[in-house]
Amino acid sequence: MWRRSYHTVKALYQLGPQQEVDVKGWIQSIRLLKKIAFIDLRDGTSSKTLKIAIPIRDSSPLDLLKSIKTGQSISVSSAQWVPTPHREQPFELKVIDPLKRIQVLGDVTPQYPLQKKSHTLQFLRTLPHLKHRSNYMGSLLRFRSHVELALATFFQQEHFTKVTPPLLTSSDCEGAGELFKVDSTAASAQSYFGRQTYLTVSTQLHLEALALALSKCWTLTPCFRAEKSDTNRHLSEFWMLEAEWCFPKDVHELTLVAENMVKAVVKSCLEQKDELIPHIIPEECEPAEIVVQRWQNLLGSRCWPTITYTEAIEILATQHKKQAFPKYEPKWGSALQSEHEKWLAGEYFKSPVFVTDYPRDCKAFYMKQNDDEAGRETVACFDLLVPGMGEVAGGSMREDNLAKLVQEMDRRQMNRKGDLDWYVALRKEGSAPHGGYGLGVERLISYLYGNHNIRDAIPFHRSATGTIEL
Amino acid sequence: MWRRSYHTVKALYQLGPQQEVDVKGWIQSIRLLKKIAFIDLRDGTSSKTLKIAIPIRDSSPLDLLKSIKTGQSISVSSAQWVPTPHREQPFELKVIDPLKRIQVLGDVTPQYPLQKKSHTLQFLRTLPHLKHRSNYMGSLLRFRSHVELALATFFQQEHFTKVTPPLLTSSDCEGAGELFKVDSTAASAQSYFGRQTYLTVSTQLHLEALALALSKCWTLTPCFRAEKSDTNRHLSEFWMLEAEWCFPKDVHELTLVAENMVKAVVKSCLEQKDELIPHIIPEECEPAEIVVQRWQNLLGSRCWPTITYTEAIEILATQHKKQAFPKYEPKWGSALQSEHEKWLAGEYFKSPVFVTDYPRDCKAFYMKQNDDEAGRETVACFDLLVPGMGEVAGGSMREDNLAKLVQEMDRRQMNRKGDLDWYVALRKEGSAPHGGYGLGVERLISYLYGNHNIRDAIPFHRSATGTIEL
Repeated sequence: MWRRSYHTVKALYQLGPQQEVDVKGWIQSIRLLKKIAFIDLRDGTSSKTLKIAIPIRDSSPLDLLKSIKTGQSISVSSAQWVPTPHREQPFELKVIDPLKRIQVLGDVTPQYPLQKKSHTLQFLRTLPHLKHRSNYMGSLLRFRSHVELALATFFQQEHFTKVTPPLLTSSDCEGAGELFKVDSTAASAQSYFGRQTYLTVSTQLHLEALALALSKCWTLTPCFRAEKSDTNRHLSEFWMLEAEWCFPKDVHELTLVAENMVKAVVKSCLEQKDELIPHIIPEECEPAEIVVQRWQNLLGSRCWPTITYTEAIEILATQHKKQAFPKYEPKWGSALQSEHEKWLAGEYFKSPVFVTDYPRDCKAFYMKQNDDEAGRETVACFDLLVPGMGEVAGGSMREDNLAKLVQEMDRRQMNRKGDLDWYVALRKEGSAPHGGYGLGVERLISYLYGNHNIRDAIPFHRSATGTIEL
Repeated sequence: MWRRSYHTVKALYQLGPQQEVDVKGWIQSIRLLKKIAFIDLRDGTSSKTLKIAIPIRDSSPLDLLKSIKTGQSISVSSAQWVPTPHREQPFELKVIDPLKRIQVLGDVTPQYPLQKKSHTLQFLRTLPHLKHRSNYMGSLLRFRSHVELALATFFQQEHFTKVTPPLLTSSDCEGAGELFKVDSTAASAQSYFGRQTYLTVSTQLHLEALALALSKCWTLTPCFRAEKSDTNRHLSEFWMLEAEWCFPKDVHELTLVAENMVKAVVKSCLEQKDELIPHIIPEECEPAEIVVQRWQNLLGSRCWPTITYTEAIEILATQHKKQAFPKYEPKWGSALQSEHEKWLAGEYFKSPVFVTDYPRDCKAFYMKQNDDEAGRETVACFDLLVPGMGEVAGGSMREDNLAKLVQEMDRRQMNRKGDLDWYVALRKEGSAPHGGYGLGVERLISYLYGNHNIRDAIPFHRSATGTIEL
């Protein structure tokens, strides 16, 4: 049904020996020797390149070969597949008549900035429209695509339905306050939707309605936070994976699903590691061996450690006495700070760690309350902390008791204009114990891929101080 | 690794005979006879329900059974799997000691509005937080989830990388003008990103940059149009599938990929049809037989017809003489109207149809120009029209010639403030012939599922006159 007019690089490595092949792609490098020329061709479907060998029998192809430059797009037709069992590549493509077989499709200017060598991320970031042609950034996009499919496969196997909750909302969900507002450019006095409209910070409230219909659902959507945090862990527009389901027993079932999900992803990365690992890695990023080691460690036979917030504070307070944290003293009742999270996961546990049961006032209104002594009220929630990054995911059981939910909303003096009447009403009709979590996709990608800045984990980032360059 | 604490309905139909099983879900209906009671239980993982049989040996469970109502969530433990080869369901679950085994988890009020019977869509739309518990709407969400995974699988097999272009942009892409503007709620004089920021109407321009790095890429993202069209074919927030790739030969290769993509989806729907087709279908929607017939027709051995815009106008003009279209006369140079599109696909071809090579001035600036006589300039583009719906997808070869692109942008007096300098610059460095298309996901879903209003194809719709209810 589908006529392939040429082979991708990925296909050639998968398919093995071929008759004549046609390929198209971009020049990664060219080496011109006396009797032979070698072109490395990349096409972005794989981190690997194709080696194209061009024997030079007379001077006729020399003008063409001398004009070939890194970055040009070319088409190569009727090349011969030649096995090269003793070289790095298992095969090369031999082109006998380059004048007839090689055609330059798109030229480059003398200023074309990407060369064969490794570039720093700092340099690549100055080229937002070209940077994905580098091996490291292109591989990062392929890695992200792979992770997304692995996530979809995991949830499919677990009978979760993928849903698409709205990004335009009329409530601020978590009450975080750092919102983007939206209106039609044409709107005059009356706003487009007849009321103040925001970009969502989390789709969770809508997911709860859907979980009570579907038992299990998940989504992967952009979320938006207009916060001023300008760090390598914050984006104004980021992708969030959220899962929500009915009938979990307790918060430990939530962490089990989160752990199994990440492990399923990591397992599939290891299975495809030859395809996924970049061949050219900037110095400031984790080298391939470290990344693969990280993946293997994540799959270690044991479950990841789980501690309560109260235990975390004890551990942190003991450490603080030995060696004070630079910015914040760990104190029961205060949020864990990034420096605390990174130390716990990176130094103390040297592993991802779940921290559960945070103080009620550190968390959102919808989390299920635990039975606690007065003054030490906690909720049935968790954060997942990973080395080097801190929090990548957080979730909770949701308060499904109508009276307790309303009481908590009143205590927080939350908007009672009726915006959330539909949400409260879910507790009146066939309610069920339910819970779930949200995971910052760019944080997970950066942690698994070994680049350190989540701005590089999304093709074109939007962040607090970043202007929109393109 | 993963301890399942109960079985989903989907799992029980997949797994076959079991020892004792635990299930959780919602009461679809209860029938209380003299010596036995039957509960139909749904859990939203399947369009099917579980039949639970409760023999009544004495009066002790009567109070419980009489109190059970449609919509309640319940837990059933240690039920016996009993094959029922002569009934509609292949098995039922027998519960001997209901007082011990059945627990109501969430009650309903006497006003609970969903009952066993079929409800009209008009009625269900009045219950946006509950409507997905109905068999038809729940099945629609599972269908959409299935379609999305089928799309991901297709693109994976074709070596496309899934990417995530930004939704916050500084340009209006197609110059359509009906945009949403965005700013921080906290922004004062200076806007958050330091310039006017919009919600994207199409991610295509960014996809072109990524296709020139990856050869082939696709995305599935929300897109936003602040248009005033208030029809069953328009949403202010909708999901768009966009694919963009390098090295297609011509527009017919684009339509071939689009056709193969839809056919791959339809094929996987047919394979899962028992799971996907709803059991209770409102009268105003297509019945199951018609839907399955539609799927089978789509896979018919032939390719879908392709005509040029000029041919389409000739066909439409001939028809217009016989029987005038109610609103618009078909005329070369004007856009095809919805009534024209629906007649062409629904009445004339009775099939999806590709219409190619529209007049330049009907389409966006970036489409590749054909060689035409002066005054009849066309571009290498296509729209995909389907019966009952009209346009569901559109695409084109992109103008990769730098001079021609700049000339066309000048002719349209497009914003030359430099917003699109990066886009134009892509034609200078390793450019390649490329093209792609965008497809409205809700339109595809509604066409394939047989519901007629795309507002029902997304869980919570946002549209021109709709207030944001939740």
